[in-house]
This record gives sequence, structure tokens and C-alpha cells, in this order.
Amino acid sequence: MEPVRHEAMRARNLELVLGEISRGGPLTRAALAELTGLTKSTVSTLVGSLVDAGFLAETAAVRAGERGRPGVEVSLSGARMASLGLEVNVDYLAACLLDLTGAVRRSVRIERDNRGAPAETVLDAVRELASAELAEARGLGLTVAGAVLAVSGPVRDGVVLSAPNLGWRNVPVSLDLPVPVSVDNEANLGALGELWFGAGAADFLYVSGEIGIGAGLVVDSRLFRGTGGELGHVLVSPSGPSCRCGAAGCLETYAGQEAMLTAAGVSTVDALSAALAEADDAALSAVSAAGEALGLALASAVNLVDVDRVVLGGVFGPLFPWLAPAAEAVLRARLTGLRGSVPVLSPSALGDSAATLGAAGRTIHGVLADPGPFLAR
Amino acid sequence: MEPVRHEAMRARNLELVLGEISRGGPLTRAALAELTGLTKSTVSTLVGSLVDAGFLAETAAVRAGERGRPGVEVSLSGARMASLGLEVNVDYLAACLLDLTGAVRRSVRIERDNRGAPAETVLDAVRELASAELAEARGLGLTVAGAVLAVSGPVRDGVVLSAPNLGWRNVPVSLDLPVPVSVDNEANLGALGELWFGAGAADFLYVSGEIGIGAGLVVDSRLFRGTGGELGHVLVSPSGPSCRCGAAGCLETYAGQEAMLTAAGVSTVDALSAALAEADDAALSAVSAAGEALGLALASAVNLVDVDRVVLGGVFGPLFPWLAPAAEAVLRARLTGLRGSVPVLSPSALGDSAATLGAAGRTIHGVLADPGPFLAR
Repeated sequence: MEPVRHEAMRARNLELVLGEISRGGPLTRAALAELTGLTKSTVSTLVGSLVDAGFLAETAAVRAGERGRPGVEVSLSGARMASLGLEVNVDYLAACLLDLTGAVRRSVRIERDNRGAPAETVLDAVRELASAELAEARGLGLTVAGAVLAVSGPVRDGVVLSAPNLGWRNVPVSLDLPVPVSVDNEANLGALGELWFGAGAADFLYVSGEIGIGAGLVVDSRLFRGTGGELGHVLVSPSGPSCRCGAAGCLETYAGQEAMLTAAGVSTVDALSAALAEADDAALSAVSAAGEALGLALASAVNLVDVDRVVLGGVFGPLFPWLAPAAEAVLRARLTGLRGSVPVLSPSALGDSAATLGAAGRTIHGVLADPGPFLAR
Repeated sequence: MEPVRHEAMRARNLELVLGEISRGGPLTRAALAELTGLTKSTVSTLVGSLVDAGFLAETAAVRAGERGRPGVEVSLSGARMASLGLEVNVDYLAACLLDLTGAVRRSVRIERDNRGAPAETVLDAVRELASAELAEARGLGLTVAGAVLAVSGPVRDGVVLSAPNLGWRNVPVSLDLPVPVSVDNEANLGALGELWFGAGAADFLYVSGEIGIGAGLVVDSRLFRGTGGELGHVLVSPSGPSCRCGAAGCLETYAGQEAMLTAAGVSTVDALSAALAEADDAALSAVSAAGEALGLALASAVNLVDVDRVVLGGVFGPLFPWLAPAAEAVLRARLTGLRGSVPVLSPSALGDSAATLGAAGRTIHGVLADPGPFLAR
């Protein structure tokens, strides 16, 4: 019951106004006052600051059916604020520049074999990519609020605990860039990407199928926890093949990208897709076996974190038509007795950009929730 | 920014006052005013209502080192409000009567083989037990705010979706008692019991080892989700024994109570404990094999929901010294590479009363958070 201080009040009101506009599209000041419960003069002051700062832009649109003077609407503007999503994966680096409206302004993917390269060399390459993107952003007149780096492995307090496929172990990430940088797990960020830019479900398990396999859980439109999600190391068979993580019989040894390519006798995902489209026997049975293993691991996951929807992302997206039936059969066999129903599998449409979209989106959401620090600059 | 209505304000203030007292022990009205930021006269009015309603009692204690008039302290009173925790398990029914201070006033366990009995017959027996306990509560001058029933299986919207060990499938629970009744998963309620009455960690996975095996996840001192937690049906080996759930190789077929007793050649958990204490070979290897399977399933669970502490409850508590080493060895082998560390296993001290404690505690926490409806009566 202590008095709300002026600054905290202003921060909360800015968040209210930006929230209504980012959810509800262009709105007049009068409509904002009604939606937020703030006075019209407070709304005018706040909108003025946000327009001056380039967060909002005025449009001259007139609402149909409204009486009296036509209202000037304001909407989010992509002209000033932006954020950078970055990803280190086993065989590529990627970056994505997002503006405040959520529009992708630039998207870069650099093929690069990061296996076995020292972590610092890889991080140097990430820094170079990020610096180039920051320069591009400046050229577009954009202020980058921050960068988030996605890495495929468990992350805690800015340190990548391990990324077996990269050969990383306890790698602290500091990129020495002129913007704040944080690092997070690739599958968790992919789940956020799917939440904000994908099919739009509020509850789902996002599975990232790459050389490693991760998972991120979204409950009530929020990511559950920052760490975990190592679906690739869930047990498929205790007598299974050795895994790079040190254990045996992990899902990754059956359904990771390399395991599928090896079993199908091809060297790239594109070649695998082509072979599947031509109904090549080796390709079909490789992907079906991977789907079966995925079903076994997903059944364990669903027994632990009850979800009704699983979104398959990364290379699992394009392989979905061949992978999903085998996985669904296993889910039905293992879950019907207990749950009565099985979760619905669906492919992600985001491909391998889910993680960079989620990474960039997280900063944008942070700016929308607390724009104050950027107005003061 | 709409004005806070008087009733909502009063409800919030009652919660503030009760919260400070339930966390901070006996407090004077002056101390409460300071802690809550409310005026002394508001505190006096609120405390007056709560004392009149039997939620709080005055004590004559004088604080050491305080100057001026000795203050009268108020503390939670167990004299009026109570709640009932109930449990249906495969071979027993249980009830627990808790007062507002969290003290266990009565605790009853009735051995009863519920396997194969029609769900309505079992629920009739639960109703009878509950009615008897409500009569006992009245005799003690206690008003029971509600009852929560723990059942070992997934529950959704008041319906037990399935409890394979009881032979239940889509059983709606309505006990026709004169108090509100709800139903929830036994392992989730056990996790709450461990949180409120156990060793007091804020983040842990609680594992309930009974004839079935469940798990409940506590993060930041809150239970994660209401459903799920079917650790007993997480995969140990795809070529393993058939499980009552319809799948094969589930943890329950290796480490459930019946699996352990059968492997050890004994018929009760007490007999198993005695055999272990005498270093009986069959008992030792049965429980060690169960521990190994538990380690495999827990490794999958920890890969999905990153936790640093696992509390083993139910029969796993007394079996802990023989069960845990094998489980820990598997966790080390499967998780060290990825996480660097493995979660700490510890036994629950609550035995099989965790679920009824959590069930009763949930109602008590609800009353403390919103006492208004009970003051009005």
C-alpha cells in the first residue's frame, strides 16, 4: 500500500499504452484512453513521447462509423528500434534483425562447420557477423536495443554448460559488442519464435530437430523456464548407440540429423528430402525409424509435461510427412491407455529461423514492456 | 487504473495481514501496520474481524527489548478453520484433518484392496471416511472449508482420466459431501505436501513411489501445472515388460512396488525392508535393479525439466538407502557429460502421508489467501 512513485507509474502507463497498440493495431488517443482507463491528457503526453522517440507513428486513417472529428490513429513504428537475434549451430551461423513491429528487416545465414573449432574462434565469427549487422542496422536508421545468441545446449547465467555437438564445455559468452548481449538455449528460443511468429497456439512443446534435438515448453503463452529441454538426450533404449554426451541410446543417436543422413546414405537434408520425394527405400526407412524413436522420447516427455500439441521444427519441419506417421503410431500405442488421447503433431513453418526469430523477439518484447530507458536516451 | 473497490481492497488487506502472520509468527498490531503499510486503525479493524472469526488468537506475550506498553500479539489460531485431505490408493484409503495453523489434528489410514472394485464402490467408501472425519471435525469445534481427494492418475476438470492400477477410466468424482470437494493427481499433491511440510526446498522434483509412480514438479515454491507427472510411464526399455497402461517397458514395470516385491520374493514393503536390513541377496538385487530403472527414467526427466534436487517419497523413502545408490550411478553416467553435475537425491520424511498433507494444505492455503467468504458466514 505504499504510494506508487511517479516514475514507476509512468513506466506502467507506457507499458499499458504500448501493449494495447501492439495487441490491438492502430488506435486513436481516445480509444487508448478508454482501453487503458487513463485520462485523455495522460494518454496524449505518453503518446507524444512515444511518437517523438520513434516508437509510434501517426496515421491519418479515419475509423468507419465514428461520429465527429476524424481521429488520428497511432500504430507501432518500425522506424527506430530494432533487435538482433543470433545463432550458433553445428554447421551454420545465423542472424536476424527485427524491428519494433516484429518485421524481419534482415536475415543472414552463413554455412560454416563449427564442429571441433575452438569456442573462441566460433564466437569471433559470431561477433563479426553481429558487428556487420549492427552496421547495417545503423544504415537503416535503426537503434538495436540488444542481441540474444541461441546455442544448442544447456545455458546457465551466461555460460554454455555444454554443447556436445560443438565440443563446447563451460563456455562463457561475451561478445564485446556495443549493445547488451545475452545467451540462451536454442530450443527455448525456438519455442518463443514459434509462439510469436508461428501458428499461434498458447500451449505446446516445440521440438527443434537439428544435428542436436532440443525442446521448449510453452504454457499459457509463456516459456516454461530458461534451461532444460534436452529432448535429444531422453532415453530411447538403454542398449542403444553411444551418444556424444557420454550416455547411450539417446534420441539424438536415432533421430538427429546426422543419424538420419547416415542411415539414408545421403549427405545433406536436401538430398534426403529429394530421396523421400522419390520414395527411396533407404530414405523412407531411415526417417521412419527416426520417427519411431522420436515417438518413444515424446511419449516420455508427454507423460512428464502434459501437452496436447507438439510442434516439430528445424529439419523435422520439411521431413514431417515422412517422420510424423511413425511418431504418431508410437504415441498412440504408448499414451492412449493412460490419457485417452494423444497430442497432435504439427510441423513448424519457421524452418531453422525459429531460434533467431525468438532470440530477436525476446528483446523486442522487453522493449515494449519497458520502453522508458530508450526514451530517455 | 480504475478505482479499487472497497471489497477487493478489504480482501487484499485481509490476505496481507494473514500472510504476514502465517509467515512471521505472532505479531503485534503495530508490527503488522509497519509490515503491511496499512494504518494502525485499519489493522485493528481487520485483526478484530479475524479474531472474532476464530482465524487469529491473541497472546499476552511481551516482546523482549521493546520499549513502552507491552504489545498484545496475535497469531494464527487452529480453533476454528480446518480442511480435509483424502486419498484413494491401490491398497488403502487415507484422510488427514489439518487446522489453519497447519497442525495435523487427525490422520486415518484404512487398508483396503481397491484393485478391480468398481469406482463407485471405492468412492462410496471414501465418502463414508470423509463423512466420519467431518463429524469428528465438528466434535472438535472445527469448520471444514473443503476437501481435496488425491488419486493416482491423470486428472482433468474433476474427472480421473485413468488410474490403470485401480482399473479406473474417465471417472467423474463427486462425493456429495456438505463441503466443496475437488480431485487432483496424487503425485502433484504429494509435491505440495513435501513443499509445505517437508524439508523445505523451493525447487525440486517430487517422486511418489507406490504401486504406481508419479512425479510433481515444484519451481520457485509453486507447483508446476495440475496434470502430468506420470513418471511411472516414462520409458526404461522399449523391449521391457508389458505395463497395465497398455505400453511396454515403463518405469513402473521395473520400480513399482509390486515389481520390487515380486522380484524380491516378498509380499509386503515391511517384509522387503526387513530383508534389505538383513542383506538378503534377492531383496538387494531387486531394489538395486529398481534403482537403476529409476535412474534411467529420472535422467530423461531431468533432461526435460532441469532440476537440481529430486525427493523420493512414498515407499521409495524407507527404501532410499538401498535404492538411491543405483539410481545415482545411472544419473552420473547419463547426465555428467551434458550438465556437469547431477541432481541430488534425498528421501522424503513424509512417507505415504505426503499426498493427504498436500491435499489438506491446499485448502488451508486457499483460506489464508482469501478468508473473506468464511468471515461472512
